[in-house]
Amino acid sequence: MSRVYLDWNATAPLRADARAAMVDAMDVLGNPSSVHAEGRAAKAIVERARGQVAEAVGCLPQEVVFTSGATEAARVLEAWPAGAVHVDPTAHDAVWTHQRTGHAEGAVIALGLANSETGVISALPSRTEDGFHWQETVADYLFVDATQAIGRIPFAFSWSGADVAILSAHKLGGPKGIGALIVRQGLDIPALATGGGQEMGRRSGTENIAGIAGFGAAIEAAMKDLSNGVWDQVEKLRNILESTLSAATKETIFVGKKNMQRLPNTSCFVAPGWKGETQVMQMDLAGFAISAGSACSSGKVRESRVLQAMGFDRSTSASAIRVSLGPKTTEMDVEQFCSAWLTKYDRHRQRAA
Amino acid sequence: MSRVYLDWNATAPLRADARAAMVDAMDVLGNPSSVHAEGRAAKAIVERARGQVAEAVGCLPQEVVFTSGATEAARVLEAWPAGAVHVDPTAHDAVWTHQRTGHAEGAVIALGLANSETGVISALPSRTEDGFHWQETVADYLFVDATQAIGRIPFAFSWSGADVAILSAHKLGGPKGIGALIVRQGLDIPALATGGGQEMGRRSGTENIAGIAGFGAAIEAAMKDLSNGVWDQVEKLRNILESTLSAATKETIFVGKKNMQRLPNTSCFVAPGWKGETQVMQMDLAGFAISAGSACSSGKVRESRVLQAMGFDRSTSASAIRVSLGPKTTEMDVEQFCSAWLTKYDRHRQRAA
Repeated sequence: MSRVYLDWNATAPLRADARAAMVDAMDVLGNPSSVHAEGRAAKAIVERARGQVAEAVGCLPQEVVFTSGATEAARVLEAWPAGAVHVDPTAHDAVWTHQRTGHAEGAVIALGLANSETGVISALPSRTEDGFHWQETVADYLFVDATQAIGRIPFAFSWSGADVAILSAHKLGGPKGIGALIVRQGLDIPALATGGGQEMGRRSGTENIAGIAGFGAAIEAAMKDLSNGVWDQVEKLRNILESTLSAATKETIFVGKKNMQRLPNTSCFVAPGWKGETQVMQMDLAGFAISAGSACSSGKVRESRVLQAMGFDRSTSASAIRVSLGPKTTEMDVEQFCSAWLTKYDRHRQRAA
Repeated sequence: MSRVYLDWNATAPLRADARAAMVDAMDVLGNPSSVHAEGRAAKAIVERARGQVAEAVGCLPQEVVFTSGATEAARVLEAWPAGAVHVDPTAHDAVWTHQRTGHAEGAVIALGLANSETGVISALPSRTEDGFHWQETVADYLFVDATQAIGRIPFAFSWSGADVAILSAHKLGGPKGIGALIVRQGLDIPALATGGGQEMGRRSGTENIAGIAGFGAAIEAAMKDLSNGVWDQVEKLRNILESTLSAATKETIFVGKKNMQRLPNTSCFVAPGWKGETQVMQMDLAGFAISAGSACSSGKVRESRVLQAMGFDRSTSASAIRVSLGPKTTEMDVEQFCSAWLTKYDRHRQRAA
């Protein structure tokens, strides 16, 4: 039986361009820190990808620091020189973990640009004379988790006013295990790792050449897709999915649909009383890959902190699933999903009645 | 002109087995943290590689924590709960950077099992009733940087008495950007990164699936090579290189050759008065990849801290080069290198005279 993959926010399939770039990079022998010809060839791969990422993200190449992913990049908050780290409670665990109070100057606000579980897009605060205003807080610095947003909605680091941003290759069709920390030029923050002094001293360690090459190729391709309107088509399919389910099941709640800006590909919905965990397993057996919450914690499934932060109670939060589409998703995929989900839903209702 | 690569301690060519495993892993779509079939397939790749690394290193699978390389793994010392971190001054920069004093209990000794610049092998201290004795120090914990040793000399984590060890895939023919922290079961130390809770909570972040697959395949192949005696042949070539140069240039000093245990593949030698940096560049132009010091600091070449720690003065340390061989090195490579180096050496002597 062929599978239908509707979990693009967990990870996206590797793009053909990224795959080819990785395979090419595997045959380049040198260590980018070596001064000889083999080393310089490896270094050239890293610098080419740095340019590709910079162009896609709207920053300078020297502002791009390659990391092993967004989680490592988020550690910039761990060593943030001073002050509080105010994290939006709907942020990803990798950012939320760095929430801390503090009284010194130099506070930072940390926001996700687009939420992985709901697709809800945050309006970024603008820099004012006394800093960034967000909810009841004023802070000196702005940290943006752009992981789910890059390649799906426009974002330009230099225009955003952000001081730092983080991103991950595998969400946009690059390989897993590579990402970047974008650091505004001249910002003085501790290194993510010290040692050999790679990445302009901001992150030591021999570079993941194949991963970096794949990241560069993927983000370039993702930007082409974005400007070619590929995600408008994805949004149409997402809307078909929601209107189909909504017409058949009146009590289903579509999170953020009514009055919030969302990513074009994400639908988070709650069928009250039907556990998200159960839905994911039943749909998996039926051939569909979806998720409940974000794909972390190694398979642990629990009620969503994100939905609770949005005001949903524990029981409602525990009944949410996330369906996330991508450029390869077809109308047939969506129809099959709706039909299978509605069948399971009816069975659940009958059992519960 | 074909090149001769004699810089295996900087990085080794990717093994065919590793390359194939990476390419296969690229086609596996899921996020290992997802509970659906796609996620479980990705998880299976990670767990298979964990078993391969555990078997090669002589530890339990649950003691293997995948990281982005040895540098990230060495950060375990940064967050070491208490006490001093006594680092051997000949350790790699990624370990040396964590040297610190401290008065609390829980001190750790950090040693490199084999030195990257000289190939010198350290005898690991044994655990005694009051801890590990090393030079003038006694400490409660032992950290071993096994990066240059694994696959070249026998090492078994569980027999070594070490509490933690670090390793890197690309030194043994795996991909760059992946490595491991080996942590003795039950040892309570802070996570390298928090967030999604991957790697048994010891290192959050979506796993580098292709890199991990390549690492597993590479270390398995490396162990086969080791038990098949491949490095005995490499040692013969290294010895031919040293005796050839030594016969022709009496003043050349071979570091550690006389009275130290060394890796089979490494020769570090000093031609007094001829800068290592110059030698590397001249040999590069002649078609040979070698190095001066370790391949870090992004191309910065400077006198070796390691050689100075061994008692060599600054000027001597600045005149050292490292030639490191591997299983693909041929006798012809060595002959060509010796002939080219001796020609350059004579020219240098004539100019200096």
